[in-house]
Amino acid sequence: MNLPTQVTLCEVGLRDGLQNEKTLFPTQRKLFLTQKLMEAGFTVIEPGSFMSPKAVPQLADTDELYRQVGESKAELRALIANLKGVERAAACGCKKVKLNVSASRAHNLANLNKTPQESMEGFAPCAQVAKAAGIALSGSISMPFASPWEAEIPLEDVIAIVETYLSLGVEEISLSDTSGMAVPNQVYRMCTQMQQRYPQVTWWMHFHNTRGLGIANLMAAMEAGVTRFDTSFAGLGGCPFVPGAAGNIATEDVIYLLDRMGVSTGIDMDMVMEIGRQVTQWVEHPTESYLLRAGTGLL
Amino acid sequence: MNLPTQVTLCEVGLRDGLQNEKTLFPTQRKLFLTQKLMEAGFTVIEPGSFMSPKAVPQLADTDELYRQVGESKAELRALIANLKGVERAAACGCKKVKLNVSASRAHNLANLNKTPQESMEGFAPCAQVAKAAGIALSGSISMPFASPWEAEIPLEDVIAIVETYLSLGVEEISLSDTSGMAVPNQVYRMCTQMQQRYPQVTWWMHFHNTRGLGIANLMAAMEAGVTRFDTSFAGLGGCPFVPGAAGNIATEDVIYLLDRMGVSTGIDMDMVMEIGRQVTQWVEHPTESYLLRAGTGLL
Repeated sequence: MNLPTQVTLCEVGLRDGLQNEKTLFPTQRKLFLTQKLMEAGFTVIEPGSFMSPKAVPQLADTDELYRQVGESKAELRALIANLKGVERAAACGCKKVKLNVSASRAHNLANLNKTPQESMEGFAPCAQVAKAAGIALSGSISMPFASPWEAEIPLEDVIAIVETYLSLGVEEISLSDTSGMAVPNQVYRMCTQMQQRYPQVTWWMHFHNTRGLGIANLMAAMEAGVTRFDTSFAGLGGCPFVPGAAGNIATEDVIYLLDRMGVSTGIDMDMVMEIGRQVTQWVEHPTESYLLRAGTGLL
Repeated sequence: MNLPTQVTLCEVGLRDGLQNEKTLFPTQRKLFLTQKLMEAGFTVIEPGSFMSPKAVPQLADTDELYRQVGESKAELRALIANLKGVERAAACGCKKVKLNVSASRAHNLANLNKTPQESMEGFAPCAQVAKAAGIALSGSISMPFASPWEAEIPLEDVIAIVETYLSLGVEEISLSDTSGMAVPNQVYRMCTQMQQRYPQVTWWMHFHNTRGLGIANLMAAMEAGVTRFDTSFAGLGGCPFVPGAAGNIATEDVIYLLDRMGVSTGIDMDMVMEIGRQVTQWVEHPTESYLLRAGTGLL
């Protein structure tokens, strides 16, 4: 079994996790978590998004959070949907943003009220403003595998988005199984094809555990050579527009898996467990993290 | 990604599942489920065990269940721990039994009040009586990967058990990650080594999802060429002697996975979902099956 010796994880609990929670986290708490995550060894964190505060009130304070975090060694990327997002990023000192579009037309309409084509047409001005402001740009593609509306997504639709990103100079791309419908052999095939076709791209994978396949999909992607993954503390996450969507793969579970397999992450398991326990207290409901429930198993 | 085109599943919910439930299932209900499972396409089922009724009261009626099922096309194997178990099997018409011993000394002591060596010494008379009664014999090895007490289990300890089984003519052996502590690269390595060393053995794998790795471990075993797996309806299961043990990998989740990847099981997904929903009603608590919660995702 061919596995990388080292992988990079991006903690997305503060963004993908919290945007699905009823409990609003005050900015001070987000600041505390961001700092704890950096102490634990995370070098990439997604602390928030610059979406409409009406649509995602939980992340309305992302600008303020960036101001309070200030200079940092970690890469702090924020999700954006449009030009307004880039402008907010520039104003608060955010140095990296992530564009997003869904490969599923129906999902993109539900999520952003635009067709994928319309979303992509808005990317060029975003890229221009970001470049002028010295903000690095990455891109994500939701539902490249399957969607609740269209079932299988044609590979050409994914490729069209990749080509758009490349035309804007975006060479860091995340494939996000928002609906939790990907299966491992499909992930392996997609990762292999994409890396062969676009060797210049830095690929990230983002898995939800809606059907219990998140970890198996992460394994398949690693076997195909991908080394960058999003995870979420306590397994928080979901998508307000995807029926039955469950959380992201849990940070604690992924670090346990990688530690036990000898794949290095640079992240401290004990500190991550402490963060996960703290977050679970704050969200005030049971979470989907296996490690937080079962522990490492050793007596 | 190398996967088999076809795998055989054994439904163990009636045994490993029910022995961990507070609700006693009447024999009629077990009979109903056994018949439904056969209708759904299962050709191997573990409907119970011949352990001490005091230790496992939920399965005290296994003898009666076998009598009521009568002749069947499916292979109905029962777990046994000693000679008494073989005798009960012979008396009720059970045609296949499964011996069990743990590769973890501490686990075997907790579970069976014997050292692994003592357990194995009792196997020879079992094999003799089984042979005379025309009962096929298989063997299982609990915690061949890791245990809560000893952490890693030395490969020699597993091999010693395999050799004992082979010396008794047992050529069908199950490796059971009772503690849910196995990780995929370890599973891949173990499956590869065991199949190379003992090509005459028919290998089964039995995974618990205690740390969310059950499905990833099943994938690893399939990649190593193993094609026989235990699953449990609604993900029921555990082990009364393993702290924090969670359920087996859920039948519904595994069949969804295999169907979506084009690996044939001969088992009908809709019927399995119906069985899982019925079982969930009967156990009267939420279960660990992802598919029962999230569905297939298609609108």
